[in-house]
Amino acid sequence: MLDLDKPQIVALFDFDVAVERIHNAYVASAQSKVQTADVVHLAFPEANGDCHVKSGHIADTASYVIKIASGFYDNPAKDLPSSNGMMLAFSATTGETLAILRDEGWLTDMRTAIGGALATRALARSDATEVLIIGAGIQARFQATCLAQLMPERTLNFHIWARNTVAGQTLTTDLNATGHCAVVVSNLEAAIGAADIIITTTTATEPLFADGLVRKGTHVTAIGADCPGKQELPTELVFTASLRVCDRASQSLNHGEFQTACRSNASLQVTELGHILSDTQPGRSSDDDITIVDLTGIAAQDIAITQAIIDAAAFAKTP
Amino acid sequence: MLDLDKPQIVALFDFDVAVERIHNAYVASAQSKVQTADVVHLAFPEANGDCHVKSGHIADTASYVIKIASGFYDNPAKDLPSSNGMMLAFSATTGETLAILRDEGWLTDMRTAIGGALATRALARSDATEVLIIGAGIQARFQATCLAQLMPERTLNFHIWARNTVAGQTLTTDLNATGHCAVVVSNLEAAIGAADIIITTTTATEPLFADGLVRKGTHVTAIGADCPGKQELPTELVFTASLRVCDRASQSLNHGEFQTACRSNASLQVTELGHILSDTQPGRSSDDDITIVDLTGIAAQDIAITQAIIDAAAFAKTP
Repeated sequence: MLDLDKPQIVALFDFDVAVERIHNAYVASAQSKVQTADVVHLAFPEANGDCHVKSGHIADTASYVIKIASGFYDNPAKDLPSSNGMMLAFSATTGETLAILRDEGWLTDMRTAIGGALATRALARSDATEVLIIGAGIQARFQATCLAQLMPERTLNFHIWARNTVAGQTLTTDLNATGHCAVVVSNLEAAIGAADIIITTTTATEPLFADGLVRKGTHVTAIGADCPGKQELPTELVFTASLRVCDRASQSLNHGEFQTACRSNASLQVTELGHILSDTQPGRSSDDDITIVDLTGIAAQDIAITQAIIDAAAFAKTP
Repeated sequence: MLDLDKPQIVALFDFDVAVERIHNAYVASAQSKVQTADVVHLAFPEANGDCHVKSGHIADTASYVIKIASGFYDNPAKDLPSSNGMMLAFSATTGETLAILRDEGWLTDMRTAIGGALATRALARSDATEVLIIGAGIQARFQATCLAQLMPERTLNFHIWARNTVAGQTLTTDLNATGHCAVVVSNLEAAIGAADIIITTTTATEPLFADGLVRKGTHVTAIGADCPGKQELPTELVFTASLRVCDRASQSLNHGEFQTACRSNASLQVTELGHILSDTQPGRSSDDDITIVDLTGIAAQDIAITQAIIDAAAFAKTP
């Protein structure tokens, strides 16, 4: 049995391999080739924490994966990371444990960011360069660096807005120190109207900004809403968008960004990302479209990134 | 972080402590003091296997537990155990991993058997000695030994019936070799009519015997049915029993032994075991009652037995 801690996992990780595996996982999911169990939610309101368990199996593959990811949002004040968790892989023919990846949430953060970057690249205008990131937590950082790594041919300008201005400044400084172009934004409304790409990475439970601010041609990637009650975007923006894309309709409409709109209109039309990535359904149709992708995170991503690490570990052991 | 394998877990295990903890867990569950997530079911029909994930938290306790348990029923033919899995404990205040108990399903088998033994002791007639066990798998063995250990004052006579007669003979031989009284039964119908206690431990998807065979005063503990489509007892027996008890009504009526009866009568009355164990609701009312308990297995048991091992490991380390 493979038992790896976070430094070992990070050392084995290959970005390009993970991108390809996660791309394929979205396609498999849209093709109904993934057995996905309902997401388990445990809530610890007294500790400002929650835990999700995602699990599934991609048809005709050797292992199934159970992913445990928690967020305890007061942890940073205790000098602990807010994310925690592990990926577990089991044989789909005998149930034997194949791997325990004690990634402390790093693989979840990475697969979430790769999912966001894949969706943003697929749906943003081809000349998009101005990226507004709302939020300055771990996922804001991952979204910025993964998007830049996925689109090396474009020079992206990151505009960072965060309620916590210290965190926003820290993220901006860190991005600039690692070769990116980033500025702090103080006027959120103006920044929304000037953005080509908006990426929301907060734990908000109500819209972060008013409707009518997003200009034509903008693409929005909404990462934060992943359980009942969370919402980052104006509901009206969701209704009027040219295209609504999600990772998995049953999750997105139930407990993702689209949950509020779906409660008003149960027949809300959404397209799963795997259909866009495989060109089986149309994506952006013009430079004037406003496109929105809602990512709740799906077990297929966890399976894909776990299998990539398992394969890398096996390859590393090959003489 | 505590990381224990099966031999270490077995060495730390204390039966009496586990019985007390699991008893208290049933009571807490019946008092709605347990946050229990929906059970995750993954199915691998091509490999004749399945996997369950149970998770939860008992109010005001330090850790939450996620339990992964699989059954791959063709494994014995490959010289592998059919049960597999692990218990994982996390801090309910920070999400940090506290323990990985790589028990390979042993703790699940044990807490299931302790649950069955507690229920059987609580509901069987006080003079019951003739125990018919249907099935000869790992859980049949655990139910017999745990029941005997829980009721040392009574001499129990085990009658073993199994479709697999070789397995039935092996179990009988092993029980006799370890100081128990056991015989193989070939006539199931006659054995049912002569039993004081019937314990069913199979993966049946239809009743194991006809209605009208169970005599007055008998107690039945049904262990096998734990997912949609499974059933061990005649539906009519469930309807006409004097008392129907279950570990957790929402599981039992949805995917336990009582699922079929519940589909015919959605208002089927059941009592949760914790209320019987805490004497807050009445149990057997006469020596003529036929009582049935349906155990699907609940997260509270997993939490209890996991915490017992964690505490034992901490105590063992205390100088």
